[in-house]
Amino acid sequence: MSSKLTLDQQLGELRDNIDDLDSQLVALLAKRRAVTTKVGQLKSAAGMPIFVPEREKSLLTMRRQQASDAGLSPELIEDILRRLMQDSYISQDASGYLCVNPDCKKVVVIGGNGQLGQIFVDLFNRSSYQVSVLEQADWPNSEAILADASLVIVAVPIRLTARIIQKLASLPRECILVDITSIKAAPLNEMMKVHAGPVLGLHPMFGPDVTGLVKQTIIACEGRYPQQYQWLLDQFNVWGAKIYPVDAQAHDQAMSMVQVMRHFSTIAYGYHLMSEGADIAQLVDMSSPIYRLELIMVGRLFAQNPELYTDIIFSNQDNIAMMKRFAHRFLALLENVELNDKDAFIAMFSEVSDWFGDYADTFLDESKAMLAKADQLKK
Amino acid sequence: MSSKLTLDQQLGELRDNIDDLDSQLVALLAKRRAVTTKVGQLKSAAGMPIFVPEREKSLLTMRRQQASDAGLSPELIEDILRRLMQDSYISQDASGYLCVNPDCKKVVVIGGNGQLGQIFVDLFNRSSYQVSVLEQADWPNSEAILADASLVIVAVPIRLTARIIQKLASLPRECILVDITSIKAAPLNEMMKVHAGPVLGLHPMFGPDVTGLVKQTIIACEGRYPQQYQWLLDQFNVWGAKIYPVDAQAHDQAMSMVQVMRHFSTIAYGYHLMSEGADIAQLVDMSSPIYRLELIMVGRLFAQNPELYTDIIFSNQDNIAMMKRFAHRFLALLENVELNDKDAFIAMFSEVSDWFGDYADTFLDESKAMLAKADQLKK
Repeated sequence: MSSKLTLDQQLGELRDNIDDLDSQLVALLAKRRAVTTKVGQLKSAAGMPIFVPEREKSLLTMRRQQASDAGLSPELIEDILRRLMQDSYISQDASGYLCVNPDCKKVVVIGGNGQLGQIFVDLFNRSSYQVSVLEQADWPNSEAILADASLVIVAVPIRLTARIIQKLASLPRECILVDITSIKAAPLNEMMKVHAGPVLGLHPMFGPDVTGLVKQTIIACEGRYPQQYQWLLDQFNVWGAKIYPVDAQAHDQAMSMVQVMRHFSTIAYGYHLMSEGADIAQLVDMSSPIYRLELIMVGRLFAQNPELYTDIIFSNQDNIAMMKRFAHRFLALLENVELNDKDAFIAMFSEVSDWFGDYADTFLDESKAMLAKADQLKK
Repeated sequence: MSSKLTLDQQLGELRDNIDDLDSQLVALLAKRRAVTTKVGQLKSAAGMPIFVPEREKSLLTMRRQQASDAGLSPELIEDILRRLMQDSYISQDASGYLCVNPDCKKVVVIGGNGQLGQIFVDLFNRSSYQVSVLEQADWPNSEAILADASLVIVAVPIRLTARIIQKLASLPRECILVDITSIKAAPLNEMMKVHAGPVLGLHPMFGPDVTGLVKQTIIACEGRYPQQYQWLLDQFNVWGAKIYPVDAQAHDQAMSMVQVMRHFSTIAYGYHLMSEGADIAQLVDMSSPIYRLELIMVGRLFAQNPELYTDIIFSNQDNIAMMKRFAHRFLALLENVELNDKDAFIAMFSEVSDWFGDYADTFLDESKAMLAKADQLKK
């Protein structure tokens, strides 16, 4: 009994010790945040990028070495510093940004109250541009709103994009016309027809939940007069984004594989789970981290707007033939299972492994890192 | 020029400041680690669980409050503390564990040199059990190895499980016979036939990369004489694992949906990408975080042993009909797209949303948390 008390006391003391260290930790992080906020203000005033890869790298190298010397895991300190830097990018984001083109008279974001439109409206505002939003109700005044625009961004749902672009026939000649739809060839084509000035197709590769654009990718498909919209790409760089230039057709083909096809088969899988009468609560309870991650990727879709996904899937009828080929390949591979032909299945598997090449190992490593992160989310 | 210098100097000073704070951070974490290691040693000696949910919760609540008061994001401090606790569980794991059943004469792990088998061998060793490994080459001496076993764990590849169990007809009557295969009804049935003593089917819901069992799930399917193997479940609890008891048939049915079906369709998708001649490097470059995550989940499979997945998929021919139903549902939904019947597609989508119920929102939230974590992995 007395030894039990002593153990409790010992543990209690150590826990007080931990609480004290954790309290010092919070105080230290508050100090760090104050310094990084100052860095953000200086950089913002000077128009310097908030993400500097070399600085990030050297900072991590120094602390990994120190951690190692102190008997700590270098991965532990790298994870913590990356989390801190993510936070400090958010705080620096709040300081505002350099305006790359002070000569820009006005930015008009059509659909600027939408989820993705808002992000751009907000960033242009915080970079001291004059920004107007044009929503459905504003079309009667559109002539006045668009008259002195230097940049018009079409940020409306995909099913409305063509119709909206067709209304933009009388933009000022020097105005840059941009869309941010997730398909690129068709809208780009519409914009080229309707507007004789500079044209650019964008596909921001991030969702409405991003906090700032640091390290996010924006795909850019050249339309016309790239030298005239270069300042816009420079502005994206100031916000921390990476620009990935690609041909519109190549973009659409790649997206049909990753976006359309994955969305569709994820929806089909959700429909299948329901149709089979699966017990979702039990599936969740019985999931390993990797299956839980897969369930999350399915279920998350169904918490979102059906029209959004329907529009993406229905926007390109060329994808149907490709998706049919998937279903038939699926059934053909299933035949191997039915005929118990393991050799054929393993041969196919190895062929695909070879095709993935080094990416397979890279993805395995990344998935391990992701699963370790997922473990931290466990209550 | 002089103002530029001043800016550089100012930035340089602030960066030195950050480096100094980060150095203090590493020193603080080293102190914390020393204390949590002591906690681990005390707990290990006393056989107390290293993961105490209430303590974790109260620790987080205190620091979230303090962070909030200091103008820091409570999520930031929670993320960092969860990462630290994950690390401290690993360090406490190294201190060894209480042996719940000192009367256990010997633990034999058949296939104990395999990836998953090793984890159990290691944990039993660090809990002061006498452990023997029985690999293929040891079968000539199996009689001697098994003669005084109190617990035999079958940890061989799924295709060998039945054959190995059939060799275990002369175990000591009191010996507990356990398997850890990812299907449960068939092996459990084999074990019940071959052994008259206590029998238990397990499915550890984690991969070989885990560092310790804290917060990991082990599915347990009752065979015979549960009171005689209760100490084993208690031992898993000491290691930090959660036990999820379920009927073997229900287990297999659920697993056919999450494990077999997902593996198969992921493999089919990889095969499809290859067959379509996709440009994997371009897909990676153009991916948003969510598509990259999906690509990772596909590619990771192909870095692994084809036989492992082939065995899981081929182990249950009952799954073929279910997977065919998936392919046909996929094609039927595709017909909606071909007929441009958006209303039917949206109606189906909404029905599935209703079926997912609250889980859809939960999964969406979790996926956002996961994506925020994925962002931290970006170089």
